[in-house]
Amino acid sequence: MAVGLKFPTSLLPIQGIRLATACANIYAKTRTDLTLIEIAEDSNTSAVFTRNLFCAAPVQIAKQNLDANMPLYCLINAGNANAGTGEQGLLNASETCHALANLADCKKNEVLPFSTGVIGEVLPVDKINTTLPELLKNLSADSWLDAAKAIMTTDTIPKAVSNQVSIDGLTITITGIAKGSGMIRPDMATMLAYIATDANISKALTDKILLKAVNRSFNRITVDGDTSTNDSCVLIATGKAKNSCIINEDSAEYALLEEALINTCCELAQAIIRDGEGATKFLTIEVSGGREQEECLAIAYRIAESPLVKTAFTASDPNWGRILAAIGNSGIHDLEISKVNVFLDDVCIVENGERAASYTEERGKKVMLQDEITLQVILDRGECKEKIWTTDLSHQYITINAEYRS
Amino acid sequence: MAVGLKFPTSLLPIQGIRLATACANIYAKTRTDLTLIEIAEDSNTSAVFTRNLFCAAPVQIAKQNLDANMPLYCLINAGNANAGTGEQGLLNASETCHALANLADCKKNEVLPFSTGVIGEVLPVDKINTTLPELLKNLSADSWLDAAKAIMTTDTIPKAVSNQVSIDGLTITITGIAKGSGMIRPDMATMLAYIATDANISKALTDKILLKAVNRSFNRITVDGDTSTNDSCVLIATGKAKNSCIINEDSAEYALLEEALINTCCELAQAIIRDGEGATKFLTIEVSGGREQEECLAIAYRIAESPLVKTAFTASDPNWGRILAAIGNSGIHDLEISKVNVFLDDVCIVENGERAASYTEERGKKVMLQDEITLQVILDRGECKEKIWTTDLSHQYITINAEYRS
Repeated sequence: MAVGLKFPTSLLPIQGIRLATACANIYAKTRTDLTLIEIAEDSNTSAVFTRNLFCAAPVQIAKQNLDANMPLYCLINAGNANAGTGEQGLLNASETCHALANLADCKKNEVLPFSTGVIGEVLPVDKINTTLPELLKNLSADSWLDAAKAIMTTDTIPKAVSNQVSIDGLTITITGIAKGSGMIRPDMATMLAYIATDANISKALTDKILLKAVNRSFNRITVDGDTSTNDSCVLIATGKAKNSCIINEDSAEYALLEEALINTCCELAQAIIRDGEGATKFLTIEVSGGREQEECLAIAYRIAESPLVKTAFTASDPNWGRILAAIGNSGIHDLEISKVNVFLDDVCIVENGERAASYTEERGKKVMLQDEITLQVILDRGECKEKIWTTDLSHQYITINAEYRS
Repeated sequence: MAVGLKFPTSLLPIQGIRLATACANIYAKTRTDLTLIEIAEDSNTSAVFTRNLFCAAPVQIAKQNLDANMPLYCLINAGNANAGTGEQGLLNASETCHALANLADCKKNEVLPFSTGVIGEVLPVDKINTTLPELLKNLSADSWLDAAKAIMTTDTIPKAVSNQVSIDGLTITITGIAKGSGMIRPDMATMLAYIATDANISKALTDKILLKAVNRSFNRITVDGDTSTNDSCVLIATGKAKNSCIINEDSAEYALLEEALINTCCELAQAIIRDGEGATKFLTIEVSGGREQEECLAIAYRIAESPLVKTAFTASDPNWGRILAAIGNSGIHDLEISKVNVFLDDVCIVENGERAASYTEERGKKVMLQDEITLQVILDRGECKEKIWTTDLSHQYITINAEYRS
C-alpha cells in the first residue's frame, strides 16, 4: 500500500559503524527481529525519546545509560515493546545490556536497548541473550538495509536513506534507517530511527542538530494521532571523516550538515507516512499566515487527524466542508473565518471563508484523484507557517488494526 | 448497526407544542426532510449552539432571533447544512424565516432556522418556501416520531424519548428528539436536539437547566472527534402543566426537573452514540480519582478518540497496551503511572501501571466480546470523576464516510 515509496537502494556505509541482524524468534513470524549497531569509540551519540508518560522499559534504561556514558552498542528487538511491564520490564531490558556487555567486554551502560512491538508482554530475555554471539560475529559496515528490515513491525517496506555533503573539502556521509507505520503522531510515535554520520561534530552540537532535525521531520508527521510508548531517534556522529570538529553553531559547516541531516530525517519521516497503515494517499498539509507556529500546527493537525477529512481523501471526494469544519474546530478563538483561503494543490476551493467563485467539483475531483496532494490553508493574520505530512484513513487501516495484534 | 437501541415508542405529546413534517426534496433520497415545530406563546425557549468557528448560517440567524424574541417556530431541514455559504447563506436562512412569518402571521425573528446535511451547497430556498403551507396545515401534537424521522441524516434509527416527573402533585412531561451519528464530539457536533416540557419554569432557569443537562449528556459523547458547523439543542418549556413557576435554583422542584431533563438528554445522547456511524460497540469511559474535571475529561477523550483503542474494541481484542498508551499521551505531565488502575467492566487489567497479576487474556476477551462495555480508569490523585460515551471504529465507518457524500 505504500504511496510513492521505493525499496531503498545504494545505502552508504558510515565509517565507525557496523551492524548485524538475526532471527531470535521474538516476532510473530519467522524473520530477522534482532539488530545490533556497533558504534566506534569517540563517537558522539544523541537521542530523543517518546514523551508518552507510559514510556517503555528500554526507553527508561536507554535514557539512563546515555546520561552515564557514550554508547558503544544499540540493541534493538522487534515483536515485543517491553512496555507496561513494570519493574520486571526494567530488569529484563537491563539484563540484555548486561549480557551483551559481558560478551563484548564493555560496560553495561554502554549499551542502549530499544524495543518495538506488542505492549504488555514479558520480554523473552533468553531468546535475545542466546542470539547475541551470532550478532557480534556478523557485524558488518554494509548491513544497513538488513537492519532496516529487521526493525520493521507493520511496515510493508524498509525505510533507509543515504545523503552526502561536502564540508572542508571532505565528503561527509549520512545514512539513516527508520521504522513505523501506525501509532504515529509527533513526539516520535511508534517509531525507531537510527541515523549515523562520519562528520566530526561536538557532543553539544550533536544534541542540538538532532533536536532541530527531529522537529522538522519526525515531529511533523501523523497517521492516527496516537503516540507510542517506545519511540526513539538516535544520531551517531563518528567523526571518522576527519573534518575539523564542528563546534560553532553559526558556522557554514554546521549549516551544511544541518541541512543534510534535516533532509535525511525528512526523507525517513515521509517514508513512514508513505507506508502509513492503510495509506492510499500522501498528504502535505501547509498552514501559512498564522500569528504563531503553534496555531499553524493546531490547524494542520486538526485537519490531518479528522477522520472525516481523512475518509474524504480516501474517497477522492472534494468534500471541502469537512476541511472548513476542522479548521473551525482547531481551538483558535479569534480566527477570522472570512479571511481564510484553502487550496488543493493549485485549485482554490475556499476564498474568504466560503466556496471560491472559480471552484468547480470537477477541478476539486481532479486533484483529489491524485496519490499525492498538498492542502494549503492561508490564514492572513501573520507571518508564521508550518508543514506536516499525513495519510488518509482507509479500510486497510481498520483491517490492520482490528484484525492483527500489533 | 445501532447497538442496543430500540425504535422509539410511546412518545408523549407536550401541551403547547405541535409538529409537522413534509418532503421538500432537499434530502438526496425522497423522504420527509422538512420539519416545523410550533411553540405556544408564553413558552420559555433556550438553546445552545456549536462552538465551531465556521458555524452555519442558520446557527447565526437562530442566535440573533433568539436574542430578539421568544420563538414561535423552529424550522428544520435535513440534506443541506447551509454552512460555508457566506452572505448568501445568511440571506437564504433569513428568507425562509420571512416566508414562514408571512404565512403564520408572526415576526420574522420569531422563527428559528436549523439545517443539517452537506456543507457548502446553496440552500434550496424555493423548495422550502413552497412546502411551508403544507407544514402549517398539518401541525399536530402527536407528530414527535415523524419529526424524529425527518431530521435524520446518516442516522439509521430515529431518536426520541419521553419522561415524566411529579412536581407540585402535577405530572410534568418531557419529550425530546435528536439526530446525529457522525462528526460527533462534545460541544454539540452534527447534532440537532429539540426537547420540550410542559413545566412552568422561568426563562433564566430554562437557560441554566439546559446548559447543565447538555454538559452532562450531549457534551459527553464522541464518535470521531469532529465537531460540526450546525449543532443546536433547543429546550422549550411551555408552562402548560400549570405548576407554580419554578424560579429558585435551590428548590426541590428545580432539582426534580433537572434530574428528569438530564435523564432525557442522556438517553438521547446515548442513542446518538448507539447509532454512531459504523458502531458495533457502545462504550462508557469513566475516569475517576482525578485532581480536576478537566484532566479526567482529557484522559477519557484521548482514549475514546484513539483510532487504535477504537479498532481494538472493534476486534474485541483486549489489547490494553493501546489504552495505556492513550492515557500516557493525554498531556497530564505529572500523572504518576504507577498509581493508575484500569478495569474493563469488573475485570482489572492494569494495576499500579502494569498488567494486573490476576489478569488473563481469557477474562479480558470475555468482556471485549460484549456489545456494551465500561472502561474505568482510576488515577488515585484526587476526588474528581467524569464519564463519557463513545463507539468503536469499524469498516462500516469508513464505508459511510468514504463512499457517500454526507
